Formats: sequence, structure tokens, C-alpha cells
Amino acid sequence: MTKNIKVNAAILIIGNEILSGRTQDTNTSTLATWLNSIGVKVNEVRVIPDIEETIINTLNVLRKSNNYVFTTGGIGPTHDDITAQSVAKVFGKKYEIHQEAFKILEAYYNPGEFNEGRQKMVWMPEKAELILNPTSGAPGFSVENVFCLPGVPSILKSMLGGLKNRIVGGAPILSHTISLRTVESEIAKSLTSVQEQNKDTEIGSYPFFHAGKLGVSIVIRSEDQSKINVSKNQILEFVNRMQIEIVDR
Amino acid sequence: MTKNIKVNAAILIIGNEILSGRTQDTNTSTLATWLNSIGVKVNEVRVIPDIEETIINTLNVLRKSNNYVFTTGGIGPTHDDITAQSVAKVFGKKYEIHQEAFKILEAYYNPGEFNEGRQKMVWMPEKAELILNPTSGAPGFSVENVFCLPGVPSILKSMLGGLKNRIVGGAPILSHTISLRTVESEIAKSLTSVQEQNKDTEIGSYPFFHAGKLGVSIVIRSEDQSKINVSKNQILEFVNRMQIEIVDR
Repeated sequence: MTKNIKVNAAILIIGNEILSGRTQDTNTSTLATWLNSIGVKVNEVRVIPDIEETIINTLNVLRKSNNYVFTTGGIGPTHDDITAQSVAKVFGKKYEIHQEAFKILEAYYNPGEFNEGRQKMVWMPEKAELILNPTSGAPGFSVENVFCLPGVPSILKSMLGGLKNRIVGGAPILSHTISLRTVESEIAKSLTSVQEQNKDTEIGSYPFFHAGKLGVSIVIRSEDQSKINVSKNQILEFVNRMQIEIVDR
Repeated sequence: MTKNIKVNAAILIIGNEILSGRTQDTNTSTLATWLNSIGVKVNEVRVIPDIEETIINTLNVLRKSNNYVFTTGGIGPTHDDITAQSVAKVFGKKYEIHQEAFKILEAYYNPGEFNEGRQKMVWMPEKAELILNPTSGAPGFSVENVFCLPGVPSILKSMLGGLKNRIVGGAPILSHTISLRTVESEIAKSLTSVQEQNKDTEIGSYPFFHAGKLGVSIVIRSEDQSKINVSKNQILEFVNRMQIEIVDR
């Protein structure tokens, strides 16, 4: 292991439509999976409404307690899109037309289509760095450690590739899953004992119901494969001793 | 309107599996939809790891700034289920066997099946009020304004009916959706004007892509149907003037 520094992040989902239940958030799962794969651990997720004061206060907490903050939502052309102006206030920067973003969208749209509504999307905090959008043109942006992405899941996904070199992760967080034909209560005591013997490994237990049958997935997570292996072997030892059917190991 | 007091809530999702991206949370959407229907507005959602100190600190913030807090996850039988002990510490209460919960599970399981693992699920904060579980026996619980539900979505859903009389909401939050065959940038200016004329009505704009066609849904939300109607008519006025196709009104 050459990289063993812990790098962490918070995800901030901005949008009344998630809080009303109207829209099912999937960006958390997309971002968390991607961040884990590049060695960034997600410490916390918050979902907040489209209220400037709330966005500013929350960003000020999260950006100081995490290496990175990723926001989703609120960077479109309508009145409820207030992420960019809020981020400008967070960093005490001017909120102004970003010349590079303007050129990108001017070239992206047909002549006459780059109207006043669309031009709102190039208003950003002064000197923001762009995050390119291969799907629909309008870029996201970052200021210091805050990265602002759109709320539409397919567009967000398409923008992560371009971010990879700007996020410096630690050692990737590895995981191993063992799926068993049992219930949690049967293995709870043995699993607690394995966790206690391996305090720096994260062991989670998740019931599942698949093809009409109950089971439990045990997920072992660590930056160190050898530590995962130690826990894995201890789990398989009690599983075999208790004659529990292994679905997947 | 007889009930016009604002009632709000926070949702606290407890679970490493959401933060790692392994599991897609759906409980937020379920809870938020249900809470809105009984007149409770969701102010914020947080997702945090299975760490006792984090659970305690977060609950202490949320329970003071909201009428209700709903937690999901961490009430099963394994070592990573630490919600009940954390809630006991939040309220300075003993963490002990809940006699009523014990009787429920003793009757629920076949003789001999109510083992040590399952008995962990009846350890709760002293004098917790039970939330009955028609799906799998093990109850959730509440202490003051904090309501603790399981993480498994189907079980959580089945427990909401039994909670209804314990949550006192305000006026239900009503909404009306107008779906248009347009893009946000076309209507941004007109929609901003409607929002500015109706500051106590929440107007959101959400692009959609359905059956190969782009569109925008405008969602108007208020406790007062007459206020929704005013915004709705102003929106339909500019929609008709601009000759925008209405998909659904």
C-alpha cells in the first residue's frame, strides 16, 4: 500500500422534489459507488431544499469537515436553480458570466437557440473550474473542494469520467461479500465475535429476499485485502462449523 | 382551513450500505410521500454511518430543529445494529429489555426459535413506545419525537399505517402538476415571473424524458388549493400564449 491517507467526501442533494417524495434520488448511489472506486469514502449525505440560506449554511459545514463535497441539482435555467449563486456567496466570489462556459453553449446550440433562459446556465462563481457535460452541453463547475453537478441522473453519470483526474483518492476501499442461506439472528453472535477481533475492518450484515428465499449478505470492507481475507476466513470457519449453506462466497 | 400550523420532520437514514453505494435507498421517498400526505413537510434528510457518536450527535441536532425525526435502519439483531442503544443515550435513558416487545416476539416465533440473536431486537430505550410490525414481528419504537423504523423497505412500509394516529400533521401539502412539451429554458422567464407573483407557493420545474420525447413538469405546492389555482391559471395563460403543447394539466 502506497496510498493510505483517508480521503472523505460528503454528498449534498439539493432539491425540493426529493424532499416531497416526488422524485426518487439515485445520484447518491451513483456518486458513492464511483467515489469508493477511486478511494474516497462518503462520510455523509444530506438532502436539503432549494433555499439559499440552507444551501450556504450546509455547504459551509460540509466543505470544512470533508476533503470533497459533491452537490447535485439546482444548476439548470429556471428560478428554482440557485446552486451557482449560493456557492458564489459561500466563497465570497462574484456571480458572473463564465466566458468559457458561454463559448461552449454558444457553439452547442443552433443559431438563435442560445436564449436568455439558457444563458442563465453560464452564470457561475468567478473563476469556477468547469466540469464538462458530454450529454447536454451545460457544464457543471467546481470552486475549491466543492463540485457542482446537475440533478438529472443520466447527465450526472456522463460527467464523472471527466472529473477523475481532479479528485485525489486514497487507497481504494475494497470489499468482499459472502451470501448465506440463513437469517441474521442465527449468525449474530459469531459475526459480532469476528468484528471484535477485526476492529479496523468494517463488517456489515444485510438480509435479502431473492427468488422466494431469505438470506443474509455479509459485506467486509477495508483498504487492505489481507485484512479482508482474515475476516473472510473467520466467517467461513463458523459458517462451515454451523453447516450454513453458502450461496456465494 | 382549520389546521395551518407548519409541522416538519427530518429523516435520518442510518447505514454504511447506503454510503458505500451498495444499496439504493428508497425509504426516503416512501417516508416523504407518506409524511406529505398527512401534512408533515420534510425539511431535510441525512444519511450517516453506523457509528454511535455520529448517530447521537446527529439525532441531537435533528430532534431539536424538527417536530419529528424518523430514523431507518440499525434495529436488527447484528453487531452493526446500534440505533436503539444510541437513542437511549440521546435521551439519557436505560437500554434494557422491553417487556411488551419480548412478549410479542416470544409469541411470534416457534418454540426454541426466539434465540439470543433475536432477543437483541427487544433491547430498547426504557419506556420506549412500540411501533408494531405486521410483516416480520420485531417492532420499531419511539422516544419523544424520534421514531425508529427498520431499514428493509417492505417492512418499513408495512409499519406506517400503525403510526398514523401518533403523528399530528398540519394541513396536508397539496400539489398540482402541469406537464408541457417544451424545455426549461423556453419557459424560465415566464415561470420566474409567476413565482415572484406568488411567493408563498412553491413552484418547481423538472425536465423529463419519456417515450423518446423531452418535456418539463411544473409542480405547484401549497397547503391552500386556491393559491395553487392562482399559480396554475397564470402558468396556463403564458403556456397558451406561447402555444406550448400541454401533455397533462
